[in-house]
Amino acid sequence: MCRWLAYSGTSVLLDEVLYRPKHSLIDQSLHARMGVETTNGDGFGIGWYEEHTDTPAVFHDIGPAWSNRNLREIAGHVRSPLFFAHVRASTGTAVQQTNCHPFRHGRWMWMHNGAIAGFHELRRDLVLAVDPGLFLSIEGSTDSEVMFHLALTFGLDDDPPGAVARMTGLVERVGREHGVPDPVQMTLAVADGEGLWAFRYASRGPARSLYYSSRIGDLRALHPDVDFLRDVSDETRLVVSEPLGDLPGAWNEVPESSYGVIRPQGDYLSEFAPRDV
Amino acid sequence: MCRWLAYSGTSVLLDEVLYRPKHSLIDQSLHARMGVETTNGDGFGIGWYEEHTDTPAVFHDIGPAWSNRNLREIAGHVRSPLFFAHVRASTGTAVQQTNCHPFRHGRWMWMHNGAIAGFHELRRDLVLAVDPGLFLSIEGSTDSEVMFHLALTFGLDDDPPGAVARMTGLVERVGREHGVPDPVQMTLAVADGEGLWAFRYASRGPARSLYYSSRIGDLRALHPDVDFLRDVSDETRLVVSEPLGDLPGAWNEVPESSYGVIRPQGDYLSEFAPRDV
Amino acid sequence: MCRWLAYSGTSVLLDEVLYRPKHSLIDQSLHARMGVETTNGDGFGIGWYEEHTDTPAVFHDIGPAWSNRNLREIAGHVRSPLFFAHVRASTGTAVQQTNCHPFRHGRWMWMHNGAIAGFHELRRDLVLAVDPGLFLSIEGSTDSEVMFHLALTFGLDDDPPGAVARMTGLVERVGREHGVPDPVQMTLAVADGEGLWAFRYASRGPARSLYYSSRIGDLRALHPDVDFLRDVSDETRLVVSEPLGDLPGAWNEVPESSYGVIRPQGDYLSEFAPRDV
Amino acid sequence: MCRWLAYSGTSVLLDEVLYRPKHSLIDQSLHARMGVETTNGDGFGIGWYEEHTDTPAVFHDIGPAWSNRNLREIAGHVRSPLFFAHVRASTGTAVQQTNCHPFRHGRWMWMHNGAIAGFHELRRDLVLAVDPGLFLSIEGSTDSEVMFHLALTFGLDDDPPGAVARMTGLVERVGREHGVPDPVQMTLAVADGEGLWAFRYASRGPARSLYYSSRIGDLRALHPDVDFLRDVSDETRLVVSEPLGDLPGAWNEVPESSYGVIRPQGDYLSEFAPRDV
Repeated sequence: MCRWLAYSGTSVLLDEVLYRPKHSLIDQSLHARMGVETTNGDGFGIGWYEEHTDTPAVFHDIGPAWSNRNLREIAGHVRSPLFFAHVRASTGTAVQQTNCHPFRHGRWMWMHNGAIAGFHELRRDLVLAVDPGLFLSIEGSTDSEVMFHLALTFGLDDDPPGAVARMTGLVERVGREHGVPDPVQMTLAVADGEGLWAFRYASRGPARSLYYSSRIGDLRALHPDVDFLRDVSDETRLVVSEPLGDLPGAWNEVPESSYGVIRPQGDYLSEFAPRDV
Repeated sequence: MCRWLAYSGTSVLLDEVLYRPKHSLIDQSLHARMGVETTNGDGFGIGWYEEHTDTPAVFHDIGPAWSNRNLREIAGHVRSPLFFAHVRASTGTAVQQTNCHPFRHGRWMWMHNGAIAGFHELRRDLVLAVDPGLFLSIEGSTDSEVMFHLALTFGLDDDPPGAVARMTGLVERVGREHGVPDPVQMTLAVADGEGLWAFRYASRGPARSLYYSSRIGDLRALHPDVDFLRDVSDETRLVVSEPLGDLPGAWNEVPESSYGVIRPQGDYLSEFAPRDV
Repeated sequence: MCRWLAYSGTSVLLDEVLYRPKHSLIDQSLHARMGVETTNGDGFGIGWYEEHTDTPAVFHDIGPAWSNRNLREIAGHVRSPLFFAHVRASTGTAVQQTNCHPFRHGRWMWMHNGAIAGFHELRRDLVLAVDPGLFLSIEGSTDSEVMFHLALTFGLDDDPPGAVARMTGLVERVGREHGVPDPVQMTLAVADGEGLWAFRYASRGPARSLYYSSRIGDLRALHPDVDFLRDVSDETRLVVSEPLGDLPGAWNEVPESSYGVIRPQGDYLSEFAPRDV
Repeated sequence: MCRWLAYSGTSVLLDEVLYRPKHSLIDQSLHARMGVETTNGDGFGIGWYEEHTDTPAVFHDIGPAWSNRNLREIAGHVRSPLFFAHVRASTGTAVQQTNCHPFRHGRWMWMHNGAIAGFHELRRDLVLAVDPGLFLSIEGSTDSEVMFHLALTFGLDDDPPGAVARMTGLVERVGREHGVPDPVQMTLAVADGEGLWAFRYASRGPARSLYYSSRIGDLRALHPDVDFLRDVSDETRLVVSEPLGDLPGAWNEVPESSYGVIRPQGDYLSEFAPRDV
């Protein structure tokens, strides 16, 4: 189990989102409330987009986020309008930077909470389905990175929800072929610098928890005293594994088997289902 | 808050003690039950004596113990009749190897759970009281390492309980001088390769939890089916921050303001009080 | 021996200065040419100022700079008008983040190449001369960090060259008292976000190598084809342990026993001598 | 380029072999003489067999060997009759523990110096040739680990030289198919706890350097004053990437395209050639 957070909106200091909230992601690295494991201390990562570059920056380290001074420094000095953060609880895979989320490929970032059941048995078949030209860039040993490369193989560039649906469909099929009936358990965040897609799905529910923030305008009316709400635009959104605090009205559960899109041209929530490949 | 374990007795594979028990120290690094903090993921250390060398070996690392593969390897291949293990929860001090317990000086090892209240303010006066020749070997920034060097200054070589009493007395006095009325909170383990001393004390109780194992002979009679008890000598003892399991009759609380000695010539428990310096 | 680089001028991507030059600092971490040691692989650090914050950001890590992916990411995404970078070759002191340069205190940054001879013996007396209120913020075990805190004690805020001269004078005196006749060997960079001071001094020369870049206008006339020179202002300056390449006319040796100041209101080079305290 | 050392013979403290020699492997991590790269600071590993266990212990870390305190501790306290040590210079692959040699599988250890040319392009086909049951245990991203798993696939358990010949043959063939005419450059050490096999081969020579030590009896007669030679049995042998010192008569080059076997029942040197698969 892991915890993650995706931010899109007004450019802010990462610190505002990563450290300031009462039950921040950094706090969740030590004391998660909603997951199976309460400690997410097996490495972490952040990734952020900036105006002047296409490729996001990523920063990964293998110790716990809660004690990492470099993370604190970067969060205190870097501003971004679109960023990811992830704290990891390994289920046995090596604790190393190449297993830390978010993963990056070109302008894409990807992070995941959940697991492919029986991944040890399915891994070979899944890896074989990755486009040979993309195979080279698999560096670590996680299921999450393989899922990312499958989505890239299945057209992430052109149709993110479709590519994720086909990736999920493949895992379901390969799982069935190996006698793993319910292989997928996932919440996913994917971004390309403009849009942000978040998915919640499990072969058999309940899927891992996932929440999105309410419209800033509505929240601002409810809580005129919260500084952060005054400083960010109406389009600003957060998607998180678990709420960052107890602000009434602030958080909404992403329904199971659905995905959301956050883009300059507008947001929407839609159903999600695996697609055969 | 930290958790620690000290073992003295029949030479065993470290793994038997560090990983096998139901609520092992490695498990406590992730899920401690009795402390203020449940996670002890800010570095760890082990130290062990061997027959053919006077100086103990130490192994320290800055990540969590629970995911450390090197620790697992060493524990699975090293045997020792007297060893320490410690998992750390930093209260703000840097997470670095020189802040990991056990500390070593010549044939001595030292580890600590607790804290000197107001250490930031007392540190300078305490460091000044360290023998100038020993000052050089302070490498980290913890209160624990300064306490060790004070005990060395006050005659640890000749009279361990007396040296620890004087160290504690100095901290009490320097605390009072700076308006910190109850500066000491500690459980300590100290060893020189033959003897093992364990202390439990707080300026104002309750002191951090500390337990010692019952006589192996008594336990063996109670639990004839436990393999480990069959394989170790009657003199084997464990001192631990919290019990390693639920074996009835196995664990006894070390009383507050007391210390125990475990040596080939016999064990005893005695009162402990700070001594003026 | 270490290698360092200080940049002041037009805001640039760190990458332009840290990685692009032919004999960049990152290259020097693996293959320094002018020092006693050719490898500077015992940790590294960068520190940078930004427009919107007073306190510089620092990033330290304990592995070699040449293979550090996080450094590469940060260098590729962070812009700064005033930054430091340092690659370390330890002479025995622990390899840990708190021993990595640049050190920071409030708005000040400090980095050092060289050593205090006999530091083990002088350390206690030097540390005692640090202001008690500053003593608390010494976290590591290097001579360089103690030198920084002595300079802060001696008025770095008001008079940087005077404070460094008094720090140096103290080390010289304490050295003599302990029978270490020539204790100081240093090149230093100090900055407060506006000004940058660089010192070169040794009790007995030659001091460690130090170079400053020529006026950009002159270089631009000489080398109209070099992109970097076209993009930066006339006030841009670099101070480096060893030249970053072979561009004729680009580098000038800082004379022994001297220091330079680089500030918006102009640069100058001046003599440096220790001052009694 | 990397440097490695394999020891077989009288059980010794690792320190005697790893740190004591004039040009020890630890010294080679900083200043190799014979390789393309003089610094081998991108991680290291040791692996050792003991009498009471079948599976060797391994210890890997990602920093340079020369400054690693844990390595020094282990080397100073662990004795072994058969051990490997390896210092790594990465050619781009991630610096992480799962890329550190020696690799282990069951009772087997494996380490490598060299590279598969064009590995990025050949990797997928090579990985596909690994037995699906072994595929699961590939954790890192090096060519060396894939070579190991290919040798396991091709019968390392039954016929080590044959399995290595078939692995090499496969790499040659896959290389040719991808237009990489000379893909193999290697020195290899392989052990199973009893025997030690060392290979030197390149598709096109010269292969990386490799040396074996002379018979101890002959060396003892030549150098009656060398302590180490008095303390070890006649069967003791070292195989090294480069000589550990300048002792006349001590080191012999392993011929190109050959391999040596060191076993209790005797040593021999034989020709090596890739075998078609």
